[in-house]
Amino acid sequence: MNIEENENATILTHKPAYKQHKTWRTWLIGKPLSTGDAPHQTIGKLVGLAVFASDALSSSAYSPQEVLLVLAAAGTGAFSFSIPITLATISLLFILTFSYQQTIHAYPGGGGAYIVSRDNLGEAYAQVAGAALLTDYILTVAVSTSSGVAQIASAWPVLAPHKVEIAVIMVLLIMLINLRGVKESGFAFAIPTYFFFVMMVITICAGMFKYFTGTLGMVENPPMDLLKEVSEPISLFLILHAFASGTTALTGVEAISNGITAFKEPRSKNAGITLVWMSVILGAFLIGITWLAHTVGAMPSEHETLFSQIARTTFESRGILYLMMISATTVILIMAANTAFADFPRLGALAANDGYLPRQLTFRGDRLVYSWGIVALAVIASLLIIIFQANVTNLLPLYAIGVFLSFTLSQAGMARRWWKCGHLKPGVEKVEPGSVLRFDKNWMVKMVINGFGAVCTLVVMFIFGITKFRDGAWLIILIIPTLVAIFFAIHRHYKGLAKELSLEKHFMEPTQIQRHRVIIPISGVHRGTLAALRYAKTLSNDITAVHVSIDPIEAQKVKTKWETWGEGIRLVVVESEYRLLMEPLLDYIEQVRELCKENEILTVVVPQFIAGKWWSNFLHMNTADQLRKVMLNDKDLVIVEVPYQVK
Amino acid sequence: MNIEENENATILTHKPAYKQHKTWRTWLIGKPLSTGDAPHQTIGKLVGLAVFASDALSSSAYSPQEVLLVLAAAGTGAFSFSIPITLATISLLFILTFSYQQTIHAYPGGGGAYIVSRDNLGEAYAQVAGAALLTDYILTVAVSTSSGVAQIASAWPVLAPHKVEIAVIMVLLIMLINLRGVKESGFAFAIPTYFFFVMMVITICAGMFKYFTGTLGMVENPPMDLLKEVSEPISLFLILHAFASGTTALTGVEAISNGITAFKEPRSKNAGITLVWMSVILGAFLIGITWLAHTVGAMPSEHETLFSQIARTTFESRGILYLMMISATTVILIMAANTAFADFPRLGALAANDGYLPRQLTFRGDRLVYSWGIVALAVIASLLIIIFQANVTNLLPLYAIGVFLSFTLSQAGMARRWWKCGHLKPGVEKVEPGSVLRFDKNWMVKMVINGFGAVCTLVVMFIFGITKFRDGAWLIILIIPTLVAIFFAIHRHYKGLAKELSLEKHFMEPTQIQRHRVIIPISGVHRGTLAALRYAKTLSNDITAVHVSIDPIEAQKVKTKWETWGEGIRLVVVESEYRLLMEPLLDYIEQVRELCKENEILTVVVPQFIAGKWWSNFLHMNTADQLRKVMLNDKDLVIVEVPYQVK
Repeated sequence: MNIEENENATILTHKPAYKQHKTWRTWLIGKPLSTGDAPHQTIGKLVGLAVFASDALSSSAYSPQEVLLVLAAAGTGAFSFSIPITLATISLLFILTFSYQQTIHAYPGGGGAYIVSRDNLGEAYAQVAGAALLTDYILTVAVSTSSGVAQIASAWPVLAPHKVEIAVIMVLLIMLINLRGVKESGFAFAIPTYFFFVMMVITICAGMFKYFTGTLGMVENPPMDLLKEVSEPISLFLILHAFASGTTALTGVEAISNGITAFKEPRSKNAGITLVWMSVILGAFLIGITWLAHTVGAMPSEHETLFSQIARTTFESRGILYLMMISATTVILIMAANTAFADFPRLGALAANDGYLPRQLTFRGDRLVYSWGIVALAVIASLLIIIFQANVTNLLPLYAIGVFLSFTLSQAGMARRWWKCGHLKPGVEKVEPGSVLRFDKNWMVKMVINGFGAVCTLVVMFIFGITKFRDGAWLIILIIPTLVAIFFAIHRHYKGLAKELSLEKHFMEPTQIQRHRVIIPISGVHRGTLAALRYAKTLSNDITAVHVSIDPIEAQKVKTKWETWGEGIRLVVVESEYRLLMEPLLDYIEQVRELCKENEILTVVVPQFIAGKWWSNFLHMNTADQLRKVMLNDKDLVIVEVPYQVK
Repeated sequence: MNIEENENATILTHKPAYKQHKTWRTWLIGKPLSTGDAPHQTIGKLVGLAVFASDALSSSAYSPQEVLLVLAAAGTGAFSFSIPITLATISLLFILTFSYQQTIHAYPGGGGAYIVSRDNLGEAYAQVAGAALLTDYILTVAVSTSSGVAQIASAWPVLAPHKVEIAVIMVLLIMLINLRGVKESGFAFAIPTYFFFVMMVITICAGMFKYFTGTLGMVENPPMDLLKEVSEPISLFLILHAFASGTTALTGVEAISNGITAFKEPRSKNAGITLVWMSVILGAFLIGITWLAHTVGAMPSEHETLFSQIARTTFESRGILYLMMISATTVILIMAANTAFADFPRLGALAANDGYLPRQLTFRGDRLVYSWGIVALAVIASLLIIIFQANVTNLLPLYAIGVFLSFTLSQAGMARRWWKCGHLKPGVEKVEPGSVLRFDKNWMVKMVINGFGAVCTLVVMFIFGITKFRDGAWLIILIIPTLVAIFFAIHRHYKGLAKELSLEKHFMEPTQIQRHRVIIPISGVHRGTLAALRYAKTLSNDITAVHVSIDPIEAQKVKTKWETWGEGIRLVVVESEYRLLMEPLLDYIEQVRELCKENEILTVVVPQFIAGKWWSNFLHMNTADQLRKVMLNDKDLVIVEVPYQVK
């Protein structure tokens, strides 16, 4: 330790001896990093696109397929509805992009739904946004990993029975990588994202080229497992249900607005342009894939993904291009899961710092990452994968509600903000945490844009919740309010505690402790007992040794030995008729406490046996430990443990 | 509490408030009993037979069946060997009876194998006997319950798939009854034992009557599931293997020698006569059942017990007599399991008192029974039943080895005892714990009788171990020495500890503690911290508050507040570069300790937060708890916990 003297306090700097940490943990997640090692780098638009787009772009791997799956209930004839449904989804995407542009420029310090709701709508809405986002990050991991594994299983059907195990192992690997702490190296992110981008462009262009030259075939042996024999009529409900499935493509669009600080200056401008690029690419992918799927007659299936069918038809074989396409899709889905591992712990720490989640979430571990959040995310997502057997279709109804709820809150918050801006005097600035409010003459236009966005996403949320209610959305509709209730319970606890402990209205207590009354519980008279007695004598002259007796012969031994070794201290033997050990002692302590005056404090000095070997714990009654657990609930009792140990 | 003053010590008598105990426990096992409530009653021969014979007599329910099962490997033709094998078993029974008569008269205070071995052969042999007996009591429970359930399943085949569950529930019920504490009421025991006796006599006599009048039929639809198509030749190994199965009938014969004190005076004589009665009845049952089974052509089977086949053939239907016979058999088997619940905890307490088993086993619970032993027995026996799927045939190879080992040790011990008696001067008495040695002119005859018994049971043990080695006996051959090794490890631990703590060669330490150095670890400055500070000031003037800092802003707050509230006590801030909390504190404490002089003691005063609600524990880092766990391993450090609590 380095020592530095200071006017108020001595400051030491502590560096752990490195050898202490060279364990399996070091091997697994690397050696501890000092707080000063925190990296800071900014990225340009091209790299920014790679870093933030994986979540949004990867959703093209499951969203078009889920649209077809819902339409399949009305027979393959209904598949032609997939094109207008996708166009509606893309319209929603552009409304959102437009709306989020304004958030990015208003919150250059990062404007996630939690912060925007907190600053503009209040704590309660922020907690709703927090609950929605946290559930959604968990589902991002579960859905993306499951979809990634489905791609693998399409290419190598032999792996299909092990989907769940593969998905869980992947989640645990991503967890490990995140526990090591990924320096958000743009390069590492750029490769898979652009690989996926290139493969998508190749696939869609090849498909278009072949279509126009008349050489595009149909899917050979399309999987027919999900086509029902009797088809239901095409209804508005069905169309809306399919549209709801399609909107899952929009998950991840908010990522850039969370991470504005990562961009090079002028960061708002750079982030805004990147968002537009991302939306254009995503829109193109969605319509491209939907069109291709429809043209080649691909079928939604549990055994083979839409991407796999499209790729093997376009490339006319399961050759190298097919495998590259599948690999690129799998990798970008895993990347999408990875982004949740960055977002979930960060939001968890933010909410914990506001006192709505356990404080532990704000602690950064050895490797400067929020380890608790990372582990919690991995565990819950793995459980979901196991419960839903890595089935994307079953997981999806749980998804998206949270996303649209957070979209709505975020945009409603922005609309509220513009309203406030419009009511400021021109030239006046109001600094709020995270952003600056100043008068804007276009406030009404901006408010309408964000307000319209909010209304759209609210409507979509209701469509989603109603059409998918029975498929699983009910669960999320229950979970989000429950989470919010838990957050507030935690908040009340912390607030109550802080108030109780606060020194603000505290006056130094007038009576000082003047006298200790000391009780030493003894099971026998031995060196451990004497060590406790010796310590007790430094506290007070008012010492009583208490022996709870079950066996009169044993009690007689204790009395005889105490005469020799007890230094004249009084001994009380409590005969326990019912062979209880704790209760008689506690009752006795209670009696003594009632006798205590105001300036007296009751101290129980416990001789604490320290087991040498782990198994020897089982050979002792550990009365001291039990006693401590019971007595600790007692505010007015101080427990002193004098350890004795055997070599 | 009643208070009684005494010359050396104050004596209090503690009775718990009854309300404290009116919980689910009271409902389940009854209200607590005072130590003075321990019952003492003695019983006559007829009741004694009922109490102690259930284990031995009930073995006739599985032993003859297992003999046939082994012989079945050589085809049904080999079944005629069952008669001479049973006669050999009965001979062994009478040798044992003769031998145990001498034990009963030499040990009027109860002469189980553990005590006889300990007194005459030494501690090591006693521990071997203890290990053998404890394993055997466990197997008695598993085998008897499984056999009882097999009887039920024979009468009601619909229950057959649930054998394991029924057996486990039965074991748990017997456990509960024993936790309540059965006053060994002879009456309750007498009814089922004599019911079984009467039903056996009726069955065997009815069978003999029908045989001699020529009306005894053959078993209708005998179960053929265990008959092999290709039979192996009849070999000496096969005969010995079958004989080994037959000897399981002898388990339980030693029960009376354990329980002599329960008999009315002259107790040795009464116990001896009861033992003879029991052996005669058991012998008659064994040969009767074997003969009947052979005559009616009953087959060993996994689906129907031998008893069930015999009873339905003798009574010509599955009528009321059949059901009574099956019920009687089931009940006596359960009674046999129940006796193990009396013996196992008693032996456990005996061995624990000698320091070879955890001390906890010597504590009697609320209801004056050795609760730990009862629960341990029920848990282990249930696990065995689950592992072996309540299959008697699979459990049996584990049984009996322990019984014969304890027979051998007990009789060898007796032989050794007669040798010692023979070498005393006439008229000289040597009082040993548990028995009195005096010269006996017939010592050689008696030594030969016990010695011959020991040799016979030793030979049987080897036959059993060798012929059943591959069936599972190997497990017991491994377990018994392992247990003995564990017993000795426990003994060494207790002995070492007693020596370390002993005051025998202890001198009062010359240096008294003159000065405390006090360290208070603080995470913040609040009322809890101040309570700890106030307490610390009563101990010493040499106080240092230590704050481990992760966040410089937080550290600054602590410093500022400390200036106001710290009463001038010095504050050390340890900046933890690697965000560790414990290590910097421990390192600091270590540094301070190195500075401590001989008459100084280091005390760490920990402000201990008491969680109000159970779940609020999860919202705190519980640093104090963690700290205590690490520091407790440190002999030279006293930990003081000053609790603070929130309403």
